[in-house]
Amino acid sequence: MSILFVAQHREMSPFKSAIEKLDSNMDVEIWPNVEKPERVQFAVAWNHPKNVFNSFPNLQVISSLGAGVDHLFADATIPEHIRFTRVVAPSLSDQMCDYVLGSVLNILQRTETYYDQQKQAEWLPQKAYRKKELTVGVMGLGAIGKKVAERLVLNGFTVAGWSTSKKVIDGVQTYSADELNEFLSQTNILVCLLPLTERTEDILDLDLFKKLKNPAFLINVARGEHLVEEDLIYSLDTDLIQHALLDVFSKEPLPESHPFWGRDKITITPHIASVTDPDEVASLLLDNYKRLLSGMDLMHEADRKKEY
Amino acid sequence: MSILFVAQHREMSPFKSAIEKLDSNMDVEIWPNVEKPERVQFAVAWNHPKNVFNSFPNLQVISSLGAGVDHLFADATIPEHIRFTRVVAPSLSDQMCDYVLGSVLNILQRTETYYDQQKQAEWLPQKAYRKKELTVGVMGLGAIGKKVAERLVLNGFTVAGWSTSKKVIDGVQTYSADELNEFLSQTNILVCLLPLTERTEDILDLDLFKKLKNPAFLINVARGEHLVEEDLIYSLDTDLIQHALLDVFSKEPLPESHPFWGRDKITITPHIASVTDPDEVASLLLDNYKRLLSGMDLMHEADRKKEY
Repeated sequence: MSILFVAQHREMSPFKSAIEKLDSNMDVEIWPNVEKPERVQFAVAWNHPKNVFNSFPNLQVISSLGAGVDHLFADATIPEHIRFTRVVAPSLSDQMCDYVLGSVLNILQRTETYYDQQKQAEWLPQKAYRKKELTVGVMGLGAIGKKVAERLVLNGFTVAGWSTSKKVIDGVQTYSADELNEFLSQTNILVCLLPLTERTEDILDLDLFKKLKNPAFLINVARGEHLVEEDLIYSLDTDLIQHALLDVFSKEPLPESHPFWGRDKITITPHIASVTDPDEVASLLLDNYKRLLSGMDLMHEADRKKEY
Repeated sequence: MSILFVAQHREMSPFKSAIEKLDSNMDVEIWPNVEKPERVQFAVAWNHPKNVFNSFPNLQVISSLGAGVDHLFADATIPEHIRFTRVVAPSLSDQMCDYVLGSVLNILQRTETYYDQQKQAEWLPQKAYRKKELTVGVMGLGAIGKKVAERLVLNGFTVAGWSTSKKVIDGVQTYSADELNEFLSQTNILVCLLPLTERTEDILDLDLFKKLKNPAFLINVARGEHLVEEDLIYSLDTDLIQHALLDVFSKEPLPESHPFWGRDKITITPHIASVTDPDEVASLLLDNYKRLLSGMDLMHEADRKKEY
């Protein structure tokens, strides 16, 4: 039996090595050079091509290489009986906490303004936002969103949280699906950590931005498809939103000609908010593979009905 | 009896108003227009001119407007019987925690590199430092340094601390005066939060930078006089130090012609790491003034022998 890695535009050999280091008996294949397709029971996918999973008659589970499983749900060619899992690596959610916390602090402290002023040799203290003046609202309270909300609370921020089914998190004012307006009306800094589904695609639009509390800021670390790009530009131009920090884009790498690059009120990072550590991920994948073989519940299985 | 504010290049009227708002019977004067010098018992100083405090025969206490009291010790014209106090405002130390934490996160995440890349429309993920790879070393474990060390621990960092007399702080490996070399040898990110005294002036020099662990970074949020500026430039040019984040300078505003401005490996903020809130400070000053009148111990009195 074997584990198969399927990816485009990304080197999978570090993951194969990391798994073999943990268990030298493991059989690991990397698409497209698969020697024994009938032996594949467990696959790991990152930006896979459609139809690829039809060639493996004994495939039972496909794991995403990260926390998002939208690329699996989006592929209707994957047989219905195949189960989906995600990788929730502690270092991944810790990195995401650090990224969001750092971004929120940079908003408060106007870090980017000081970088620009330095280039002009300009000494000009700006009015900082006070922590108590701004509420951070986290959309999506899954494994990672919950950690992010908790970390913000730990650092003294006022935090609200919104998710489809209402969650209870210490120190966080939480809202459920039908309370979106209440959530937005008290949120200054909106952090998007939603899964990408049909219902959440394009959710970050003008209508939503209008409901945020002033001054409003956006941090998108989920998926580019959550955001209606032209609505963001309009909202920045009309001061509905003061500043947006974006780590994800509907097309990555973001094309050189994209209008986001040249905007002062947009900060771009190249999808680096959390980066997979092959050793850590290998151990999580191996654990789930062994759970599959022994008939135990899988860790972090996605619900194919709910699509996340 | 009255409280006197003495400052140069800074507006003191917000502090006067804040005190009068708390207690409308308070008599507050602002130098140089002092109507009744003999009534002044308690003074508050920020960048005061020398010799100014000789004109108040009944002056008993001078409070700094912040945590630093070096400007009081540096003025030999202040009579020896006058006691010095500092203001330790919770929001000040919280801001300092936020500033240092944000700076450390920006070092890890290479935030400034991404700002620069954005200006070139360049999508180029950089290798991030992992939290567990870098130790943050806090020099100075007074009221503010202790809070900063604790906040870094709370956020998962490995933290070392150094101070003249050894302190005990949960989760922090602490060192005393004669253990400076051990402290430096395990510190990657050096945070200077020392008081400015004869012994700590020019402490951040080439000899010290050489003892830091590689890769090394400097965050100075204490006083410009702690740093030997030419040694920093030499250390950056020779890669002894990767990057320095400076909020304080021996001359402020930093002159436009200063070589720091144009350096890629130096990040400059205009002394904004923590900014006094008049309402909060007024309440602390008033409290100490009333303690003086009633013969109670003063809060945060400085030791005129130790000079901090």
